[in-house]
Amino acid sequence: MSFTLPTFDDVLSAAQRLLPVAHRTPVLTSSTLNQRLNGQVYFKCENFQRIGAFKFRGGYNALAALSPEQRRAGVVAFSSGNHAQAVALAARLLDVPATIIMNSDAPAAKLAATRGYGATVIECDRLTQDRTQIAQDLVDRQGLTLIPPFAHPDVIAGQGTAARELLEDVPDLQELYVPLGGGGLLSGCLLTAQAMAPDCKVYGVEPLAGNDAQQSLRSGAIVKIAPPASIADGALTQALAPMTFDIIRRHVADILTATDNELIEALRFFAGRMKIVVEPTGCLGAAAVMRQVDLQGRRVGVLISGGNVDLAAWGRLLG
Amino acid sequence: MSFTLPTFDDVLSAAQRLLPVAHRTPVLTSSTLNQRLNGQVYFKCENFQRIGAFKFRGGYNALAALSPEQRRAGVVAFSSGNHAQAVALAARLLDVPATIIMNSDAPAAKLAATRGYGATVIECDRLTQDRTQIAQDLVDRQGLTLIPPFAHPDVIAGQGTAARELLEDVPDLQELYVPLGGGGLLSGCLLTAQAMAPDCKVYGVEPLAGNDAQQSLRSGAIVKIAPPASIADGALTQALAPMTFDIIRRHVADILTATDNELIEALRFFAGRMKIVVEPTGCLGAAAVMRQVDLQGRRVGVLISGGNVDLAAWGRLLG
Repeated sequence: MSFTLPTFDDVLSAAQRLLPVAHRTPVLTSSTLNQRLNGQVYFKCENFQRIGAFKFRGGYNALAALSPEQRRAGVVAFSSGNHAQAVALAARLLDVPATIIMNSDAPAAKLAATRGYGATVIECDRLTQDRTQIAQDLVDRQGLTLIPPFAHPDVIAGQGTAARELLEDVPDLQELYVPLGGGGLLSGCLLTAQAMAPDCKVYGVEPLAGNDAQQSLRSGAIVKIAPPASIADGALTQALAPMTFDIIRRHVADILTATDNELIEALRFFAGRMKIVVEPTGCLGAAAVMRQVDLQGRRVGVLISGGNVDLAAWGRLLG
Repeated sequence: MSFTLPTFDDVLSAAQRLLPVAHRTPVLTSSTLNQRLNGQVYFKCENFQRIGAFKFRGGYNALAALSPEQRRAGVVAFSSGNHAQAVALAARLLDVPATIIMNSDAPAAKLAATRGYGATVIECDRLTQDRTQIAQDLVDRQGLTLIPPFAHPDVIAGQGTAARELLEDVPDLQELYVPLGGGGLLSGCLLTAQAMAPDCKVYGVEPLAGNDAQQSLRSGAIVKIAPPASIADGALTQALAPMTFDIIRRHVADILTATDNELIEALRFFAGRMKIVVEPTGCLGAAAVMRQVDLQGRRVGVLISGGNVDLAAWGRLLG
């Protein structure tokens, strides 16, 4: 398979496109946590991004790069949730018809929000149906343009703008921890850190039950796993794409994992101490930092990827 | 009873004292809400203040104003929760011994946090014991200085700094909605708005089940009610103090009420759409705005007073 890898220049172009429409999300800190860990932890809060997650960045950037003909024909996307809302909102803002293929077990709030943005939603069963194939059929038969959730240069470049803002606000980060599903966010962050802070070690963090990327990195080739079970519903991908694997294996410091219990502990900390709502997937980077005993004064960045939760289910996790 | 009323000059002095220690909390907006209400609503987020509530402002200001002798002897405070933590943290920062009398039915997180700041905590039964009297005994017998939760010029002046920041950020507010328990925050906001935005209508909002202030305003004299029952555990006061009633009746536009169901609806909106944790009491001002049908383009401020919740109990309210 051949493809063109995105570069940091693409991240800068994406930042220009996103300037008038995306939020520059806040970077929050907790003095309680900093004291406990003996370090400085900077949380880039993409739960405050439009649609409640970083995915708006990549989705909008990809749609904004389409030709007038492609925009008229419309787009199709498949997503476990936040990419769906991202494409749906970007499509509304750019006046592009959008069809979204979503897992039927995605949080109800995500399904409703996607429909609320005016997109056509097709539900599919994550365990028995191949949503990639369903999307491809729409491309072949109706001429729609596929906006994949991570394996796309414009999507990756868009996601990288989150790290760019963080590194502008906190230039001397020594480590950066990034939630990892398909690798779009991590790839974009790697390209950005490589250019802006080459000494910063960037870690991807995936659910322990879905550690395909860790296995891939260790073995040197993409490993595909069975559909994993974790509360991190935004990181249930079975395999990296060649594009994201290529960027990740070249630049990543390491790939770590977090258990569901560690994610719950992190989301309780966010709610109880920092007063913010973070979805389980959004806690992946934080979980890998919070379990450390002593940061020895290091300055550490953490990407909080999103805050879209089914309130009732999320509320039960607090109990 | 005679007392000296605080003035806006006292608010400005408090702002100077607080500058190096308090957070300048963010002002958040929701485009979803603004579209629904046809207006501009600005949320001053004191849930992001130190100790998770505006009370740090008044508590710190009062302790910072003590003489060296008073600081050495120590302070005592009684509080349903956030004032307790405010005095405890201020005391630690200023190296003052602190004894806090708390309701035994206050959220466990608030009791633990207060102890965590190094204060001595005395628990009392809200329905059968008079915490005012317990505090007075410590003053008489051990020479401690009482830091009351609202009926104190330095406390009121400190709380007013929240409105000052909001009116600096959004100078042309036409209305401001403020949670109302004992009236310290509302009094401070009224003094500030009177000076900075005299045309801004300021409303106090209390729980429907504990509408003593509304009754007092209507009747022209302080009305004391039986201990009320509401999820707004920070606004369960039975009566205003002469000091707060005096300021409120002179300047307030009106006193409104909110039901527990309206508070729950508001806290679900905050969690689900704005990704922030707000305690039920902190939703009082918001509830009075969110139930409106059409703001007709008005620019409206809302004080979110705090975000300190018992996570399990709060999580159940989301369900």
